[in-house]
Amino acid sequence: MSECRYQYDVIVVGAGHAGTEAAMAAARLGAKTALLTTNLDTVAQMSCNPAIGGIAKGQIVREIDAMGGIMGQAIDATGIQFRLLNRRKGPAMHSPRAQADKKAYQWWVKLAVEDQANLDLRQEIVSDLLTEEVDGKQRIIGVSVHGGAIYRASRVVLTTGTFLSAIMHTGETKTPGGRGGEGTSSGISSALNRLGFRLDRFKTGTPARINFNSIDFEQTELQPGDDEPQAFSYLTEKLNLEQMPCHITYTNDKVHDLIRANLNRAPMYSGQIDSRGPRYCPSIEDKVVRFADKDRHQLFLEPEGFNTREVYVNGISTSLPRDVQDEMFKLIPGLENAQIMRYGYAVEYDFCPPDQLWPSLQTKEITGLYFAGQINGTTGYEEAAAQGLMAGINAALEGRGEDPLVLGREQAYIGVLIDDLVTTGVDEPYRMFTSRAEHRLMLRQDNADRRLTPLAYDRGLIPPHRREVLTQKMQQIDTAMEILGSTRHQGNLLANILKRNDSSWEQVCELAPSLQEITAEAALQVTYDIRYEGYIARQQVEVERQKRLSHKRIPETFDFTRLTQMRNEAREKLCQIRPTSVAQAERISGITPSDIALLLVYLDGRMGSKSS
Amino acid sequence: MSECRYQYDVIVVGAGHAGTEAAMAAARLGAKTALLTTNLDTVAQMSCNPAIGGIAKGQIVREIDAMGGIMGQAIDATGIQFRLLNRRKGPAMHSPRAQADKKAYQWWVKLAVEDQANLDLRQEIVSDLLTEEVDGKQRIIGVSVHGGAIYRASRVVLTTGTFLSAIMHTGETKTPGGRGGEGTSSGISSALNRLGFRLDRFKTGTPARINFNSIDFEQTELQPGDDEPQAFSYLTEKLNLEQMPCHITYTNDKVHDLIRANLNRAPMYSGQIDSRGPRYCPSIEDKVVRFADKDRHQLFLEPEGFNTREVYVNGISTSLPRDVQDEMFKLIPGLENAQIMRYGYAVEYDFCPPDQLWPSLQTKEITGLYFAGQINGTTGYEEAAAQGLMAGINAALEGRGEDPLVLGREQAYIGVLIDDLVTTGVDEPYRMFTSRAEHRLMLRQDNADRRLTPLAYDRGLIPPHRREVLTQKMQQIDTAMEILGSTRHQGNLLANILKRNDSSWEQVCELAPSLQEITAEAALQVTYDIRYEGYIARQQVEVERQKRLSHKRIPETFDFTRLTQMRNEAREKLCQIRPTSVAQAERISGITPSDIALLLVYLDGRMGSKSS
Ligand SMILES: Cc1cc2nc3c(=O)[nH]c(=O)nc-3n(C[C@H](O)[C@H](O)[C@H](O)COP(=O)(O)OP(=O)(O)OC[C@H]3O[C@@H](n4cnc5c(N)ncnc54)[C@H](O)[C@@H]3O)c2cc1C
Ligand SMILES: Cc1cc2nc3c(=O)[nH]c(=O)nc-3n(C[C@H](O)[C@H](O)[C@H](O)COP(=O)(O)OP(=O)(O)OC[C@H]3O[C@@H](n4cnc5c(N)ncnc54)[C@H](O)[C@@H]3O)c2cc1C
Repeated sequence: MSECRYQYDVIVVGAGHAGTEAAMAAARLGAKTALLTTNLDTVAQMSCNPAIGGIAKGQIVREIDAMGGIMGQAIDATGIQFRLLNRRKGPAMHSPRAQADKKAYQWWVKLAVEDQANLDLRQEIVSDLLTEEVDGKQRIIGVSVHGGAIYRASRVVLTTGTFLSAIMHTGETKTPGGRGGEGTSSGISSALNRLGFRLDRFKTGTPARINFNSIDFEQTELQPGDDEPQAFSYLTEKLNLEQMPCHITYTNDKVHDLIRANLNRAPMYSGQIDSRGPRYCPSIEDKVVRFADKDRHQLFLEPEGFNTREVYVNGISTSLPRDVQDEMFKLIPGLENAQIMRYGYAVEYDFCPPDQLWPSLQTKEITGLYFAGQINGTTGYEEAAAQGLMAGINAALEGRGEDPLVLGREQAYIGVLIDDLVTTGVDEPYRMFTSRAEHRLMLRQDNADRRLTPLAYDRGLIPPHRREVLTQKMQQIDTAMEILGSTRHQGNLLANILKRNDSSWEQVCELAPSLQEITAEAALQVTYDIRYEGYIARQQVEVERQKRLSHKRIPETFDFTRLTQMRNEAREKLCQIRPTSVAQAERISGITPSDIALLLVYLDGRMGSKSS
Repeated sequence: MSECRYQYDVIVVGAGHAGTEAAMAAARLGAKTALLTTNLDTVAQMSCNPAIGGIAKGQIVREIDAMGGIMGQAIDATGIQFRLLNRRKGPAMHSPRAQADKKAYQWWVKLAVEDQANLDLRQEIVSDLLTEEVDGKQRIIGVSVHGGAIYRASRVVLTTGTFLSAIMHTGETKTPGGRGGEGTSSGISSALNRLGFRLDRFKTGTPARINFNSIDFEQTELQPGDDEPQAFSYLTEKLNLEQMPCHITYTNDKVHDLIRANLNRAPMYSGQIDSRGPRYCPSIEDKVVRFADKDRHQLFLEPEGFNTREVYVNGISTSLPRDVQDEMFKLIPGLENAQIMRYGYAVEYDFCPPDQLWPSLQTKEITGLYFAGQINGTTGYEEAAAQGLMAGINAALEGRGEDPLVLGREQAYIGVLIDDLVTTGVDEPYRMFTSRAEHRLMLRQDNADRRLTPLAYDRGLIPPHRREVLTQKMQQIDTAMEILGSTRHQGNLLANILKRNDSSWEQVCELAPSLQEITAEAALQVTYDIRYEGYIARQQVEVERQKRLSHKRIPETFDFTRLTQMRNEAREKLCQIRPTSVAQAERISGITPSDIALLLVYLDGRMGSKSS
């Protein structure tokens, strides 16, 4: 058998949400990229809820977009219901969310991938990772696929999601596979084991899908989308699709009693699953146990698209046996006759604890090998896409001999996400929350472009027209600021008037009609800039302090075992995480200010322990 | 574990082309029907070429439509290029064909299924068939699915396609699975074995898919669709979608040399596959061997839809190893830089030789169990859909205690198809050809409604508005006939003028302007009716003779072993096939006129061997 070889700069394994962003980003940066995935018909498939965004996740999508990623445009093109969540709260909490036409979303992303220059999308089952030793360290040289062909590349991004040695559970029934109706990959788990990675197991779950025509909507509440839907992408000028409403219903005591009576048959409680699931995205059996006093839970009936009658029942994810699922629905108002099309299930899968990664998402163990997405112990499409984007960027940059792009916690939720992963690891599937960001007033969904687009442009990540869109907005902001800072009404600067919570943009427009030229988007920025000036300035002080510490970089090769004066526990932590800056070291849980002081002494060479 | 049971009238296993028609038909007839399939995302997926219709197959689609099936409407709604093949030949040869937007086709069918009353579509892996003995004979009572739940029904239609104990081959590489990226079902093969069915193996293959953007179209020939595309469904008033062109290129000596040099690595020639494939749909390696003198083969580059860049390379189906596939494309004009997205492969699978079926498609072995589609040794979406439709109809009719609907060879290609299957079995994957139909001038694509819609209406298969469309057309035909048969021009009846091949409808319209009221469709019918009157009358004689023989029915319980006076060979054949009419017996290969004469003697009771 003659050997079949293909040569690329970057190989991305798995075309889920992480993989598609990774491959697109690497290709946009000019790397010759291959995106290899088990089945071309599942590119960017939404394994669970047909929605993008949500609290803190919506911010991430805006950031991905600001840096040239595709998730924002994909959902804008295929969304069926847009809502800005937390509208009543402060702007740091505003989070865009949209329901997707699930299949349309998938084909939109696939088409974008197919149309991307430098990028080959190929149906392949990757079965092994190929490495060689260089200067005593393993580095990746490619992957082999089912059938024996070899893809060579010195950078490989692994984004295999929930598919590593995956088992699905519905009650007592176990089925190998990473998603209903699909298989699993065991080759990669073995390869990772062999290469010395620690693997661990997590679980996640999904609810049943039911037929729209079998729902009695009379018994449900209507939840329409926003009247003036806001787009995710900074490039979208207008959202085109008609919107579809959702509906709301509730569980009740009878449902909870049924679940309690069958808890012994729930894999999470019977001991059949012993890996941890996402605490903040619990299954219905979890909710019934943990929130025993609640007499009902809200369920959203979310249509999966314009051309299907499948409805996703958000809020009732479960791995209870199917007969219990059947009974459960019969007890829920509006769903008494629901026709279940696919049953809910939980899936258990291997992930790699992410403290094995550098902040660039490159693995510490194997040079040139990157991990992104659910394989890093996260959950969520947005978290996956964000990591994919960064891993793809960094794989391509490294290929060009450039420094990796690492976002700060004050720059982006993406920065928070990756810093959390690599600094503290995960003890349950990690999802983003606004509370994870110290500087969330700075990391608003409305200003992601101001935060990230210039930086993306500098790295060659985005084409000029994206930059141009931002420049125009910035000019508008400058103009508005100038007018507000120079026009007075009854002696008060308009800027000061706008600062007051009881004022509005419309009011100041009346006072200075030239402000009417300002776009709504720029007006919003100006309003927030003025109103939150004080808070932001205070946050900035902490940011500066962190930045100074960040500038104290620790070389990758720094030998933490030589910190002999340090407490054992702290030294071990540092050895495991191998922080790349003093700021990162400071964030490791259990590391005290005095540990840091000692570390600084070593770093300054005052104790003779320079990098090995 | 408490047992989970669902009760239906009819269960259809597998939602491919056969299964969707079967389930829809049964449900339309009022049977409470479950359609169970491995993965809801692959409902009605086109495993191979993204096209419906073609020579003889197009006629079948028109027949399916005339009887209320969905295939015609599905392709009308999602076709991207329509062509009437063989336009230059006589009307018996005219065959509609359309390229489909492959994914749109799939979702259209899935939506139709979801919207059908009495029909539940559920994602399930069927693992066993349940039977019980009644009066010494097995009858089906349901199926069990992965996870142990049980679906009960006294009629089950099996339409599992290429998925039974399937193995895919690409060169030396074998992968279990019935379609690229998917799995296989072994449970059903075991069940069939256990229940006493003979199983055999066939193979079929598919070519690579390549990226549209990587084709150099300058080197190819354009093949546009028809200017005035004709719809498949008698209900379609207008085709909406924009059309997409195909392109044509050719293989050449170099390609053929390469293939010859690698024949030892082709599973079909290396001995790795020893089951037969479709002779009339050969792989490229087959073509090179069997048509050694041809210096090129035509390849059609068929886009798979509006929203994808995948292109199906029609004409180069192969199971050669991937490195040979890579090299092959480099040698084909326009495809030198083709980016392969999925490789070609062959698939070997179990089928049940169809002489084990009654003409109703019910199995002889197990009461209430029906087979339809590729499981019967056929190939092609249209052949599958036709069988699905009939099996679904008959399962429902049987449930109501009515006689099965069996179409005659003179009534429909579907009649020819099923009669061929159950009478002569198959020794290679069976596909329809016009040459298989003795009465093809009667079985034209344009008159399928006239042939079948009244009959479908009588059986309650179609709603009144379908019948109404036909009635209106028939009225038009009658009016036109009346005018043509009563108006003269220079002494000649217009009917006689129209009969001449050098005349045209436009000419007679000028002579009798009231004919301008006649629709184009009715005008065509009238023209054919008049022109082919003589031929059809002659065919009718043979049809009548056959009909008389068909009326001589043989009871299902007739004991052929008692035909002791008959030649052994003939008796064995009759025992195997168990024909249900003398006409069918006559068509069994190897049965001579004198065998039939003898059979008639027995049947008349003249030799005391009445049914047992
Ligand atoms: C049942 C289920 C329930 C979930 N519930 C939730 C939820 O409630 N909330 C939430 O936020 N998130 C949920 N998720 C998680 C969400 O789906 C993931 O976070 C997200 O899809 C991860 O993206 P990814 O790109 O990392 O992986 P995926 O989207 O899983 O993509 C991985 C890709 O890799 C491919 N692949 C795998 N192995 C190979 C191989 N060997 N060779 C080639 N290709 C390979 C796969 O085919 C797939 O295309 C759920 C996931 C599942 C499966
Ligand atoms: C590789 C390949 C190449 C082909 N090439 C050609 C060609 O060149 N020309 C041509 O005319 N035809 C070709 N065909 C054949 C064509 O695809 C089939 O004739 C047609 O799809 C058969 O329809 P079907 O409904 O019988 O089966 P399928 O379309 O195969 O559908 C079977 C369905 O059953 C489901 N199923 C299987 N097992 C189970 C189970 N245990 N439980 C529940 N559901 C189950 C499957 O998921 C699937 O949805 C090819 C097929 C393949 C796979």
